Amino acid sequence: MPSRRNFIQTSAALAGAAAMSPTGAFGATTSPAGGRRGKLTFRFRPYTLQMKHVFTVAEMSRSTTPDVLTEIEFDGVIGYGEAAMPPYLGESHATATAFLSQVDLSKFDDPFQMEQILNYVEGIAPGNPSAKASVDIALHDLVGKLLNQPLYRLWGLDPAKAPVTTFTIGIDKADVVREKTKEALHFKMLKVKLGKDNDREMIETVRSLTKMPLTADPNQGWTDRQYAIDMAHWLKEQGVLYIEQPMAKDRVDDLAWLSANSPLPILGDEGVQRTSDLIKAAKNGTYNGVVIKLMKTGGLREAQTMIRLARAFGMKTLFGCMTETSCAVSAAAQLSPLVDWADLDGNLLIANDVFDGVKVVDGKLTLPNRPGIGVVPLK
Amino acid sequence: MPSRRNFIQTSAALAGAAAMSPTGAFGATTSPAGGRRGKLTFRFRPYTLQMKHVFTVAEMSRSTTPDVLTEIEFDGVIGYGEAAMPPYLGESHATATAFLSQVDLSKFDDPFQMEQILNYVEGIAPGNPSAKASVDIALHDLVGKLLNQPLYRLWGLDPAKAPVTTFTIGIDKADVVREKTKEALHFKMLKVKLGKDNDREMIETVRSLTKMPLTADPNQGWTDRQYAIDMAHWLKEQGVLYIEQPMAKDRVDDLAWLSANSPLPILGDEGVQRTSDLIKAAKNGTYNGVVIKLMKTGGLREAQTMIRLARAFGMKTLFGCMTETSCAVSAAAQLSPLVDWADLDGNLLIANDVFDGVKVVDGKLTLPNRPGIGVVPLK
Repeated sequence: MPSRRNFIQTSAALAGAAAMSPTGAFGATTSPAGGRRGKLTFRFRPYTLQMKHVFTVAEMSRSTTPDVLTEIEFDGVIGYGEAAMPPYLGESHATATAFLSQVDLSKFDDPFQMEQILNYVEGIAPGNPSAKASVDIALHDLVGKLLNQPLYRLWGLDPAKAPVTTFTIGIDKADVVREKTKEALHFKMLKVKLGKDNDREMIETVRSLTKMPLTADPNQGWTDRQYAIDMAHWLKEQGVLYIEQPMAKDRVDDLAWLSANSPLPILGDEGVQRTSDLIKAAKNGTYNGVVIKLMKTGGLREAQTMIRLARAFGMKTLFGCMTETSCAVSAAAQLSPLVDWADLDGNLLIANDVFDGVKVVDGKLTLPNRPGIGVVPLK
Repeated sequence: MPSRRNFIQTSAALAGAAAMSPTGAFGATTSPAGGRRGKLTFRFRPYTLQMKHVFTVAEMSRSTTPDVLTEIEFDGVIGYGEAAMPPYLGESHATATAFLSQVDLSKFDDPFQMEQILNYVEGIAPGNPSAKASVDIALHDLVGKLLNQPLYRLWGLDPAKAPVTTFTIGIDKADVVREKTKEALHFKMLKVKLGKDNDREMIETVRSLTKMPLTADPNQGWTDRQYAIDMAHWLKEQGVLYIEQPMAKDRVDDLAWLSANSPLPILGDEGVQRTSDLIKAAKNGTYNGVVIKLMKTGGLREAQTMIRLARAFGMKTLFGCMTETSCAVSAAAQLSPLVDWADLDGNLLIANDVFDGVKVVDGKLTLPNRPGIGVVPLK
């Protein structure tokens, strides 16, 4: 973890004390430090995720992701959070810094007032879901640590029911895809990015190396609904389980037609950010399922509501992520026993993770027996 | 509280040990007792609530309510639950006993596996919402006690945001209504039962004694939609805030018309039991809001989902109850900071409560600073 001095203090009155505070590995510093007990202190620090490989999806290629690391401290205990901001979604270091600078948690003296605190954060400005998620995650982590319980336990969930996660194979030439697939054969499910001009080659290349279940993500890349339904039939024959966001999110009639006729579930990702989108999608039959991501929902609170809502609508649920550190991925993994499928590999795609947290063991998400979101900072 | 020997043991293997167990007031007996640690023990006992006054709603009058008291014990800590079963809803001592006799919690060794345990209970048989609620409440109480935290705190809610509760004035002759209203003037909102032939007299009698806000509950008693809309306008002039279930729940078109045209919010009670009903109601515009009751939802887990769902639909939320002891009312009160309005007076209507729990102070629900649902058995 970076030195505490690199964090931007938003609770000005407490800045001096907190800048000198000891490293807050969980459980290590529970003794009250003068002036900090009884107030929440919020800090954040822009960070840049370096990706192990250049990552290509239907829209673009990139090798870094802007990120913000956050901390909420109370009574010497620190909760960790994160905002991961793929550039095409509109948030950036600049927008997150502008938003998070307005977050003043020093007005709260009880971290257990989560509903009130998160409503306050929600009300600061519209949008900014990743920035909001970074506060939500840190607050959940803090509360779990104060109760000395993993979040899954506080939510009544069975960590043994955490699903297998897919590992993502980006779009590339066949020989590169072959190499990446070989490196990923210890996973139990692979997600194949589609949506450029080599859809069948992508699937066939991966399939030539493994019989494991695959999933497909064209990232809005398909433009013709007949092509989409033909691909859905072919993908089913290829052992693909579901298709994420096949066409542009605004083509709701085509998507509803596809969802009604596809032999594979069609999951809304770009088309479903928050609860209001989910309600609309359920009403219109736009999708058979939904991709929940903390960086879309604004955090764990809304994610849990959306999962339970989607299930009530009879929709399938996939917990996804952006390229993220083990912080946000571990937070998502805490809720993952509630979903049908997981695609929580974002931490495995970056070269400069700053946390130890959830692991993939035999392809399955394996939650650490630690309080809160279950992470410890890497030295 | 009755002697432990009156409780029916459903975990036969543990019956001997548990029958001798000490009284389980929270925090008192946390030391493991031989053979009980590591397993959940479930007990239940039929009980009959004696009502202080004969209670008349549109459908009928009665002076008792069948009830079942439940306990889940783990590691010497006891969680309390309850099933309250107004006869017109179809559950009874016989149905609850038949259902609860099938609940075998001895197969579980971790009370924190709430999702799994409650899914198991849900799957035993369809229906039986009150019986299911009695397990859900006891399990939530147990988990809160094991963490030594009130449920509102585990859910991130502010107890100061618990709403004012209405107190219910049943249908009667004007002089009786006058007496009952005089006894209830320390409340801050009164709910007036309507739906017989004296609607205006009921309201005018109460209104002659107080200026406080009123609410109206015809309990499906109105049969003509023009009468209903005329009454809605008149009730608004009389300072009524909302109308519960004005017409029969199967008259969805009339209810939707009324919800679209009424100057007061129309809340679905008999017409909305669980999440699936809520989704249907939202889709059809049947109601402007929903009455959540633990004895309809099957417990706190589903109630919380329904509240968040109703809010996402833009619907108003009222937390109601049956005639219940302070056990189920206190459980509901833990969630009440999430709702718009409360009608949690069921414990105040009975003469033989067996718990001390939530209080009404200056008309407002006031949660005790105790773990779980916040109750202690009365001696």
